Amino acid sequence: MPECELSSFESTGSGGQPSPDVEDARRAIERCHVLLSDAGDVSGERLANEALAAYQALTGASLNTFFGLLASQFSPNPDLIERWADAYRQHPSREVLGELQRAVEPPRRELFRRLNLASAGTATLIDMRRRILRGQDAYPPWAAVADDMPHLLRSWFNGGFLEFRRIDWRTPPTVLENIIKYEAVHEIRDWRDLRRRLQDDRRCFGLFHPALSDEPLVFMELALTKGLSAKVQPLLDPDSAVVDPASCHYAVFYSISSCHEGLRGVTFGNALIRRAVNSLGREFPRLKTFATLSPVPGFRAWLTGAARDGDRSSAEIVASLDKSGEGVPSADLQKHLVPMCASYLLLAKRGHEPADPVARFHLANGARLERLNWMGDTSAAGIGRSAGLTANYLYKLSEIERNHEAYVAGRKVVASRRVERLVHETH
Amino acid sequence: MPECELSSFESTGSGGQPSPDVEDARRAIERCHVLLSDAGDVSGERLANEALAAYQALTGASLNTFFGLLASQFSPNPDLIERWADAYRQHPSREVLGELQRAVEPPRRELFRRLNLASAGTATLIDMRRRILRGQDAYPPWAAVADDMPHLLRSWFNGGFLEFRRIDWRTPPTVLENIIKYEAVHEIRDWRDLRRRLQDDRRCFGLFHPALSDEPLVFMELALTKGLSAKVQPLLDPDSAVVDPASCHYAVFYSISSCHEGLRGVTFGNALIRRAVNSLGREFPRLKTFATLSPVPGFRAWLTGAARDGDRSSAEIVASLDKSGEGVPSADLQKHLVPMCASYLLLAKRGHEPADPVARFHLANGARLERLNWMGDTSAAGIGRSAGLTANYLYKLSEIERNHEAYVAGRKVVASRRVERLVHETH
Amino acid sequence: MPECELSSFESTGSGGQPSPDVEDARRAIERCHVLLSDAGDVSGERLANEALAAYQALTGASLNTFFGLLASQFSPNPDLIERWADAYRQHPSREVLGELQRAVEPPRRELFRRLNLASAGTATLIDMRRRILRGQDAYPPWAAVADDMPHLLRSWFNGGFLEFRRIDWRTPPTVLENIIKYEAVHEIRDWRDLRRRLQDDRRCFGLFHPALSDEPLVFMELALTKGLSAKVQPLLDPDSAVVDPASCHYAVFYSISSCHEGLRGVTFGNALIRRAVNSLGREFPRLKTFATLSPVPGFRAWLTGAARDGDRSSAEIVASLDKSGEGVPSADLQKHLVPMCASYLLLAKRGHEPADPVARFHLANGARLERLNWMGDTSAAGIGRSAGLTANYLYKLSEIERNHEAYVAGRKVVASRRVERLVHETH
Amino acid sequence: MPECELSSFESTGSGGQPSPDVEDARRAIERCHVLLSDAGDVSGERLANEALAAYQALTGASLNTFFGLLASQFSPNPDLIERWADAYRQHPSREVLGELQRAVEPPRRELFRRLNLASAGTATLIDMRRRILRGQDAYPPWAAVADDMPHLLRSWFNGGFLEFRRIDWRTPPTVLENIIKYEAVHEIRDWRDLRRRLQDDRRCFGLFHPALSDEPLVFMELALTKGLSAKVQPLLDPDSAVVDPASCHYAVFYSISSCHEGLRGVTFGNALIRRAVNSLGREFPRLKTFATLSPVPGFRAWLTGAARDGDRSSAEIVASLDKSGEGVPSADLQKHLVPMCASYLLLAKRGHEPADPVARFHLANGARLERLNWMGDTSAAGIGRSAGLTANYLYKLSEIERNHEAYVAGRKVVASRRVERLVHETH
Repeated sequence: MPECELSSFESTGSGGQPSPDVEDARRAIERCHVLLSDAGDVSGERLANEALAAYQALTGASLNTFFGLLASQFSPNPDLIERWADAYRQHPSREVLGELQRAVEPPRRELFRRLNLASAGTATLIDMRRRILRGQDAYPPWAAVADDMPHLLRSWFNGGFLEFRRIDWRTPPTVLENIIKYEAVHEIRDWRDLRRRLQDDRRCFGLFHPALSDEPLVFMELALTKGLSAKVQPLLDPDSAVVDPASCHYAVFYSISSCHEGLRGVTFGNALIRRAVNSLGREFPRLKTFATLSPVPGFRAWLTGAARDGDRSSAEIVASLDKSGEGVPSADLQKHLVPMCASYLLLAKRGHEPADPVARFHLANGARLERLNWMGDTSAAGIGRSAGLTANYLYKLSEIERNHEAYVAGRKVVASRRVERLVHETH
Repeated sequence: MPECELSSFESTGSGGQPSPDVEDARRAIERCHVLLSDAGDVSGERLANEALAAYQALTGASLNTFFGLLASQFSPNPDLIERWADAYRQHPSREVLGELQRAVEPPRRELFRRLNLASAGTATLIDMRRRILRGQDAYPPWAAVADDMPHLLRSWFNGGFLEFRRIDWRTPPTVLENIIKYEAVHEIRDWRDLRRRLQDDRRCFGLFHPALSDEPLVFMELALTKGLSAKVQPLLDPDSAVVDPASCHYAVFYSISSCHEGLRGVTFGNALIRRAVNSLGREFPRLKTFATLSPVPGFRAWLTGAARDGDRSSAEIVASLDKSGEGVPSADLQKHLVPMCASYLLLAKRGHEPADPVARFHLANGARLERLNWMGDTSAAGIGRSAGLTANYLYKLSEIERNHEAYVAGRKVVASRRVERLVHETH
Repeated sequence: MPECELSSFESTGSGGQPSPDVEDARRAIERCHVLLSDAGDVSGERLANEALAAYQALTGASLNTFFGLLASQFSPNPDLIERWADAYRQHPSREVLGELQRAVEPPRRELFRRLNLASAGTATLIDMRRRILRGQDAYPPWAAVADDMPHLLRSWFNGGFLEFRRIDWRTPPTVLENIIKYEAVHEIRDWRDLRRRLQDDRRCFGLFHPALSDEPLVFMELALTKGLSAKVQPLLDPDSAVVDPASCHYAVFYSISSCHEGLRGVTFGNALIRRAVNSLGREFPRLKTFATLSPVPGFRAWLTGAARDGDRSSAEIVASLDKSGEGVPSADLQKHLVPMCASYLLLAKRGHEPADPVARFHLANGARLERLNWMGDTSAAGIGRSAGLTANYLYKLSEIERNHEAYVAGRKVVASRRVERLVHETH
Repeated sequence: MPECELSSFESTGSGGQPSPDVEDARRAIERCHVLLSDAGDVSGERLANEALAAYQALTGASLNTFFGLLASQFSPNPDLIERWADAYRQHPSREVLGELQRAVEPPRRELFRRLNLASAGTATLIDMRRRILRGQDAYPPWAAVADDMPHLLRSWFNGGFLEFRRIDWRTPPTVLENIIKYEAVHEIRDWRDLRRRLQDDRRCFGLFHPALSDEPLVFMELALTKGLSAKVQPLLDPDSAVVDPASCHYAVFYSISSCHEGLRGVTFGNALIRRAVNSLGREFPRLKTFATLSPVPGFRAWLTGAARDGDRSSAEIVASLDKSGEGVPSADLQKHLVPMCASYLLLAKRGHEPADPVARFHLANGARLERLNWMGDTSAAGIGRSAGLTANYLYKLSEIERNHEAYVAGRKVVASRRVERLVHETH
């Protein structure tokens, strides 16, 4: 609900009665004001619980009203900002700077700090941000609220406070059911499927915050193997034989999932990969190669776009792909699709960065694009998004920081010779 | 080391070589700049460890130089502040406000956030602030650094993240030795002394942060008793008999200690008392009264001050007290000292608040001053600071919030009739 | 494999070669002899691991040979027994008694004690006994081995060493998958079914031994309810609403399962029920009634038997039941079947005890047969074994020991008036 | 109290009243009979608690009476033994053997099994045996009771059930205070002394039974060092510097203590040493040598005995030692005392075994006597028992089992050439 409408709501004035929804939202906002104005911290926990309880009772329209009020109220006072900005211009002392800092900080931040005192406060606030992020396209003023939170969340979820934990078949189901729920790359169909992913030649690692002990912030799954895997389906097969992890030389990361949309803007994936690599290295000194087996999720949409834009060879490929539907594409396509995919990953851009989100993630983390695999993922999702292809990104300890810096400095896409050469094979 | 001296140091210019101390400090500061300018977070943990290692190698003069540089550098850029303040005046949009917010935030805060990635980062930063607080009277510019941290610390040590734990004879010695070290009210002489304080009719509770698992932030000790204790020594006697806690009606809080000077400005005591009261209430439904047995630590100094200022009755009392030294004062003094103490607690002020720090703490928390006890603490410290008197502050569930609000609103000292009447008995 | 055959095997003599199976079994037996003859305990653990490894490599025929050898060897020496029996007759001193005690103890017991030193020794021995018990009807000499173990198992699994644990949704799947596997009364179909049985208004308790930490010895499931449940299906419905346990007055035990066939003869169920009742009483002081909702598993087979033996009314009922197959029987049958079931439970005997195994268990534990429920269990198993009926046995704290003693002394079946009256309604 | 006296007590008959002590003991014995005769196990736990409570209320004379009754009652029935022995002679079947086995087993064993159901039952029974062992010299009949327990204790404390745990500064004080209490070789003076023994270059390991979680059965202390320590005092110095354990090549075991006198006859020390060696080997692959630094506790008494028996050189040494009292002996003595000590360890016997108890223990475990150290332990106890000497016994993985077998077979004292040569130096 955009702010203007809300204002008109609020000004229904003498003539109309505010609807019950608006009343509920206002009562919840009132509890927030009471919490924020409390001096001392004797009543803080009680008031925080009351405010969150009032918020949690809201639904639909009343929730929209609440977010609108949260955006229009609890913002910094422009007069105060101007006053202290003027004072600072005249006398840039430490004290005046302090006042200016306080003036520009939205009271919402302090409100969120205090709401966190409620039981399950952290989880509720993260979920609140999720709703706001989802609604901010429809209700642009909400963005002010969504923007105020990352500052706080980055402090709260500082890497120094996160716990790295192995998730296995001794982990409580209260955690495991979240793994099933949040797995975003290769769906976990049931507990039997999950069980195979947690056996001796598999690893699942997560980063946890003490205030959210059953919900990982991010988790990854990997297989210990004797060679660099090209295909996903054998890794996921619940009936596959378990191999002795001590005999493996490869760690193949085949899935990484973030769990909390409400934490968007606070990144954890990189730290998780780094800690996983360290932990595996200590446990298995014989491990030589850390690599991913990744989807190329933007590839097919990019191909379709190119076809629409009139590119003839793309159009032919797309037509052929469409014909096979969710099934495996014709083998003839391999010699066209694989070079096209190399072009996509190396040349297609979104701004200055690679167009493919998975490529962006791993390249920024210092990996190298090593290999493309024909029919590496023949699931419906694999065909539908990546045209059945998979990519191996290689994390080589000796070059991670160098690659990362080259990426940060010039968005350089570090790739193997083999992949680079593929680009020239496109017709 | 004041900033001006440092600047002269830095400007020794072409003629002189900087001393090795200055060189070490500059190298550590340089690591901080590298950490702060790192884009992405691939190298963050490594760089944070390097910066803190360089800092931890500093001592004496080099440490002072480091703190001086930390204060003079990493501050907000005044030009930038002015530019965005002007922009805001002309166009107070959300985007411009965001820029102004970023401009006024000292880069030091981001530096501290990143330093926290190092192993034991949190503990090191808290200790760094302790040193800075201790030095800032001698080196006023350091205050800018000390002031930047509470903002962050209040986020990190948000009440929602703290764990309330009972400390008992099953608690690891890694924690227990910190109880011995930080106990600030009634010294713990040895492990036997500690053991008695952890037995069945005693409780010790602490608040912990997950990043500091062996060091409580604050802890309190209490005795479960059959009556409202007036005297400290029997409670502390390691040879006293253990009573059945189920038969007790009183919980007497006789000690509360903060552990980290570096967390000054972030308060935990109140939250600890509240959680302790809740926990005890659940465990012992028959408990009726929660009260303290507290020192009056500012009393004797206040008396001495009054004597120096020419108050005759104070002067006589002080003379008599001085005569008995660390021993128990003459019984004659009771009828003078107790009313004097009531006057001190009810009437003596520091600004608008009670002069006594313990009174300030408990009254602000919503307690009521219930009773004064002659010779309640006959230890050397008890005689030396409180003239041997103790005070009982009562935490009555039904009035805590009301008392707290009366205190916050008008600094009202809530006291029992009995104590109020004592004021009129002063001669 | 009966001992006689084995002997013929062994005596194939100079002419024939023993088969490879026999060779393997003999090698394993040889490792047992080595372990048993070891003096001191320096090599015990190694030798035990070797012996169990040799045993675990056996299959089919070689395993049978092994058990046969275990039975024929490692038995007490009759000559030695006679010698010390004579000595005791002549001089019944403590020393001679000691020698006689040693002479009658089968060396197998010491062998089992030493095998337990191997890793996972306890679990392997329990499983060994399971196989022997299953085979002893076919190979009677094995009974000597099966009989030697309970003496040891009763010491090892002494009630004083067992842990009572709640099993819930935080319990590791390594334990939970055993709950699914061993549930013997009402099959757990999948993890969703299991999850409902572990929610707030349900309890699952198990007894565990420290050497078998992931496998309960016995476990029970119960529902907290507002009335005495008559029907099983609503309790098991995974979609049923969760009620507030604090509002419940009834604890309805609907399933109890033993996990280890190899521990036959060592009983745990009674101790589990007693501890569960204590634990529930402490957690929910408002709980008034502890009762079971039990099958009557021998009822239908008994009816069929009676029909076969020529009882006409039984024959009619059986015919009617057979007509409805696995479906719900005709409602007309209720007035016949319920009184018949009362007769079965109160009058039908196996020796001096009730014929029904569930009745034997609960009555021996001190419960009272309280109520019979028409169509209390309409599952295929419920219809097939109990003709759809369920029974409530009541555990009334004030009468448990009295009922138990009446049962032990005279096999008295304590039942409510209501059930007793039913017997007279049989036609 | 010997059985005969007791009998006379019991037969005070019509004339006299039994004393209250006797009454208490009889009541406790009566509770034991009730417990033993209970059929089923519904009331077992309650009856066991009642019996142990009655026992624990006994003191002095009543306790002696109780033990006397325990010895005279609860023994096997000689008539029954004879009857089944005869039956067995005539028909040595499995069933008759079973009856004979039951007839010879003292009912006391079943009594102890049932007493173990009481809370803290295991600990109470172990302590009961301690008292009986201490009293059996004065009251010989008690030996029958003491002898009945090891059979049970060996089952209960089977090595397969014991937990090997590291004890360090994170271990709860409830355990640590038992380490202080039971340390039998080098007294732990206070918590500071203990703390040093638990630091990074020290290890303390214990074996625990699940039923006695705060009390180790046996524990050992060792130092990680750069050379083979000869002297005890530097190892025990609480102010000594902590060295990096990763840089050490030697593990020096300087103390091993059993905790429960009541478990005499059930040995744990060997298993502890074996597990410690395995654990250290895994943690520190660079460790090369596992050796002890041991007292020679019987040496000085043996010297004194030899002097008394007229050996002149012994007499001279003893006289010189006596002159220096608890102080360090004269340096002149070294060339006499060290060879004498070698003779003592290699030649002096108790039966067929070495006279020295520490030598017996380590040699039986497969160690080799490697070196003798002049003034290796200058504490009062070290001087008083070992004349200040220490011995290093070497545990060499490649020879432990061979040495052990040589010892078991022929009581061979395996010693280094160096020590063997010393024997020839005695004058």
